[in-house]
Amino acid sequence: MGTTAAVVGAGVVGAAIAGRLAEDGATVTLLDPHPRAGASWVAGGMLAPVTEAWPGEEALLALGTSSLRRWPAFAAALADAGHDPGLRTDGTLVVAVDSADRAELANLADYLATLDRKVEWLTGRELRLREPSLGAAVRAGLSVPGDLAVDNRRLLDALLAVAVARGVELVADRAVAVRPGLVELADGDQVRADVVVVAAGAWSGALHPLLRDVIRPVKGEILRLRARAGSLPPPGRTVRGLVEGRHVYLVPRDGDGLVVGATQYEAGFEPGPRVGGVRDLLADAERLVPGLADYVLVEAAAGFRPGSPDNLPVVRWLEPGVLAATGHGRNGILLLPGTVAEVAELIGACL
Amino acid sequence: MGTTAAVVGAGVVGAAIAGRLAEDGATVTLLDPHPRAGASWVAGGMLAPVTEAWPGEEALLALGTSSLRRWPAFAAALADAGHDPGLRTDGTLVVAVDSADRAELANLADYLATLDRKVEWLTGRELRLREPSLGAAVRAGLSVPGDLAVDNRRLLDALLAVAVARGVELVADRAVAVRPGLVELADGDQVRADVVVVAAGAWSGALHPLLRDVIRPVKGEILRLRARAGSLPPPGRTVRGLVEGRHVYLVPRDGDGLVVGATQYEAGFEPGPRVGGVRDLLADAERLVPGLADYVLVEAAAGFRPGSPDNLPVVRWLEPGVLAATGHGRNGILLLPGTVAEVAELIGACL
Repeated sequence: MGTTAAVVGAGVVGAAIAGRLAEDGATVTLLDPHPRAGASWVAGGMLAPVTEAWPGEEALLALGTSSLRRWPAFAAALADAGHDPGLRTDGTLVVAVDSADRAELANLADYLATLDRKVEWLTGRELRLREPSLGAAVRAGLSVPGDLAVDNRRLLDALLAVAVARGVELVADRAVAVRPGLVELADGDQVRADVVVVAAGAWSGALHPLLRDVIRPVKGEILRLRARAGSLPPPGRTVRGLVEGRHVYLVPRDGDGLVVGATQYEAGFEPGPRVGGVRDLLADAERLVPGLADYVLVEAAAGFRPGSPDNLPVVRWLEPGVLAATGHGRNGILLLPGTVAEVAELIGACL
Repeated sequence: MGTTAAVVGAGVVGAAIAGRLAEDGATVTLLDPHPRAGASWVAGGMLAPVTEAWPGEEALLALGTSSLRRWPAFAAALADAGHDPGLRTDGTLVVAVDSADRAELANLADYLATLDRKVEWLTGRELRLREPSLGAAVRAGLSVPGDLAVDNRRLLDALLAVAVARGVELVADRAVAVRPGLVELADGDQVRADVVVVAAGAWSGALHPLLRDVIRPVKGEILRLRARAGSLPPPGRTVRGLVEGRHVYLVPRDGDGLVVGATQYEAGFEPGPRVGGVRDLLADAERLVPGLADYVLVEAAAGFRPGSPDNLPVVRWLEPGVLAATGHGRNGILLLPGTVAEVAELIGACL
């Protein structure tokens, strides 16, 4: 290829694209003032197109399902390179607490049936036989064996390591604008490149006029817990719950870790986790799994999902030489392999 | 004095004693593997002998009252040295939520009356006139103008800075045992000194046979919050609350900070904050001050108070040349000036 590329944003999307372009022979600069701090780092790592499905978002379900199919090979390639991202294939349970939650879950099951997605309805007792950690408050649930999870932090580390091993130069500069052939930096410098990729997540809106009113931050809180030696063990698979109308998910990690997420609201780039968000996540997670009470609270963090008007990612040429790969909302990790393939195709067709 | 001293533990007690001994002419080594990580760092910083008073603990109340009297001069001396520890003299409110809490508060008021400690009984409405941040759940309270607070982290920084400025050598080694003339270190080395002071807080019990079954860790969780630009402001003075039988306190800090503490239970040196403890602190603090919901949760931490059998500190010679200054329980910051004076007297009488 013999070309040069500048990728703005070293989250999973930017890091994977940078690595892929370097593999194809490009000289790649990957720009991020704070790697391991954005939505990819804060995320939960669910690969859950079915349990995230929502009437009216059939295009997103199709995109997610297609990307999920790529995930096992995508993870295996990283593992082969010596950087196992910790893909978990134990499936997902979606559970409900009160009768309104149960009714909403039944709606989801009906909706999935119309799409020919097979899910299994389980009583509270059946759920506790599979997941003894679930408490008495859990009344009913669905088993969705195809929805997976990955350790998002191990994934980001893996993608950055692979990119750097392929010669990508990771630079801690902050981009303020992009245009054909050029990235402008906050310090007044410029990076010149044949191809510029905007993969700056929620911050993408400020970089190019065509993204300005398209990409917005959608704030969310998330917690990281760890079981103690004497604690009841965490669930063995992802548990999503509806607790009095609020959504909560619990994603197990190797080493007795558990990620609990996530709130979702619009508050611009308001920094730090809100007390009210953390309070709800703790209370709702304990409602599903009472044994969490004596777990260690390792971290409470807030992140900014890159929201788009239709909840679909923006992966397209903005103008010649400037490609967007952003707007993945709450599905950035899931949609990663599909996005990388799409970007490779878009760039391959033009160079 | 011309003597040498080794102080084990660089919390507020150890740092202040080290600084005081250096001021008196001693050559002082201050040993701590993790300065700014123990109970002094995690603490809330209340100087509250009256609102902490408890029937049967009259000796502790007397000790606390006596030490509190020393606090203004103690803080002023640090401020004069260029290290203002942030003493707050706005007083304390103690408030109650349900009728059982109110009854317990009335008991405290009656008890304090028998000791001739004057406190003022306030209705919920009177409380909200003084502290508009208090929510409708607050039904009654006491005003205790004499109970103060200090920024414990600024205090520890100040004491360490003053000690180092006086020539104290701060060494990040871990002590494993003390005996006359000697501190044994984890790496097999030894520190020789004419006077050895054990000020290692909850870890003191492992250092000397006479402390072994005397000092135990008493675990507690504590939170640090910060108001946002658009938030309702935090209370202007310390608010202690009884919420359905649980104790919670809110101590304001400069810069819109607020410390929320503290749980108290026996769990050995179990590391990290428990989910259940954090959940209770958040819920109870919000019950008192509903506006906290949109504050940032900056930190959730756990610490270990050095508990003693009678809740009184252990400040005495263990054997010739080995002095204990530990066992301050939940009152280490309050009792600091008194302890420093006592230690100076004990050492001065012998050297």
